[in-house]
Amino acid sequence: MSSEATSQAYPEPVNRLIEELSRLPGIGRRSAERMAFFILKAERDDAMRLSKAIADVKDAVRCCSICSTLTDVDPCRICTNPQRDASTVLIVEQARDLISLEQTGMYRGVYHVLTGRLDPLSGVEEHDLTIQQLFERIDDAAQNCRGEQVREVILGLNPNLEGDSTALYLSDELRKRGVTVSRLARGLPSGSQLEYASRAVLADAIMGRQPVPDDQ
Amino acid sequence: MSSEATSQAYPEPVNRLIEELSRLPGIGRRSAERMAFFILKAERDDAMRLSKAIADVKDAVRCCSICSTLTDVDPCRICTNPQRDASTVLIVEQARDLISLEQTGMYRGVYHVLTGRLDPLSGVEEHDLTIQQLFERIDDAAQNCRGEQVREVILGLNPNLEGDSTALYLSDELRKRGVTVSRLARGLPSGSQLEYASRAVLADAIMGRQPVPDDQ
Repeated sequence: MSSEATSQAYPEPVNRLIEELSRLPGIGRRSAERMAFFILKAERDDAMRLSKAIADVKDAVRCCSICSTLTDVDPCRICTNPQRDASTVLIVEQARDLISLEQTGMYRGVYHVLTGRLDPLSGVEEHDLTIQQLFERIDDAAQNCRGEQVREVILGLNPNLEGDSTALYLSDELRKRGVTVSRLARGLPSGSQLEYASRAVLADAIMGRQPVPDDQ
Repeated sequence: MSSEATSQAYPEPVNRLIEELSRLPGIGRRSAERMAFFILKAERDDAMRLSKAIADVKDAVRCCSICSTLTDVDPCRICTNPQRDASTVLIVEQARDLISLEQTGMYRGVYHVLTGRLDPLSGVEEHDLTIQQLFERIDDAAQNCRGEQVREVILGLNPNLEGDSTALYLSDELRKRGVTVSRLARGLPSGSQLEYASRAVLADAIMGRQPVPDDQ
């Protein structure tokens, strides 16, 4: 009822903007209204830049034909970078995960973005992801960045039920193809406090305990 | 540094979208990223509808030449509605306040949107608001909706320091013009609990106590 009353009160273009904005993730009706009024008050040029940025992103950004990450050039800059080690492939669920890993500056290999994880209950199956392309990259070096053979695959899926079962499936398939399979380390998050860590985190930390080098 | 690293990792159009989105109120860098990736994943048509809604709102929505509220027709539908009592004007700070009041369905007069409140410390002075237009509406009935004389002005500014001082200034000026000046009632908010009410609210509630009709 409140939404109906609102519809009558706002001019139609404002209503439509509020409706479109409230489709965005984490944006409720109130935030959408606040954003709409901000746009209404903003300079015309500023609003148009936002409008154009949305359209541009749909026009200019696509998936890398090798690793499926988001890119404005194809293949992406990571796949074509001769400084990156194309024989090591880190598998992530989504492009955002790749960005987070890149920000550490610690990884010099290449990536493969699955565009999701296996989740049969939600209807996400193998052919919905880029699993076939991954196998092709490994089976046929010509499909990989700069034609190099893949020797190691690092599983970088999310440490939860769906991520783990996807990782399990992939590691089986990958081992059949003769590549070394590893996964990102699990344990206590840096900067956390042990007393607040969950049982699962502590179990991972114990099971995965790491040798301390002598000189430390 | 983190932001710089990000700039390198995202394709340029994605960066630009994140930057534009993070200008929106209440949207930090992380939310902007989440929204940008949502737009990237969305159907092209959906993204384009959002882009267009933003552009449309800047093209199609303007201020009513009488009451300054946001409207797609000028004068707005409230000012031109013959069912509304044009002799009573409710003054609000912004169009959103008008919408909230309209949603109650309790007010049958017209409005005047100040587009802000007097706040000399932040450099908002009389000429930044629509105060002159308000006085013209009152002095010259021809300026008002449907040429009717304004008899009562209800002050609907926010109950805070700036709102109160703006109301004080306006009520002085309006009384000189021979109109009845009232303000929205203050007291305990419906549905609240007395024990949690602030001292200012309780003071308002005591000072503004209302007679209880016999038949209740």
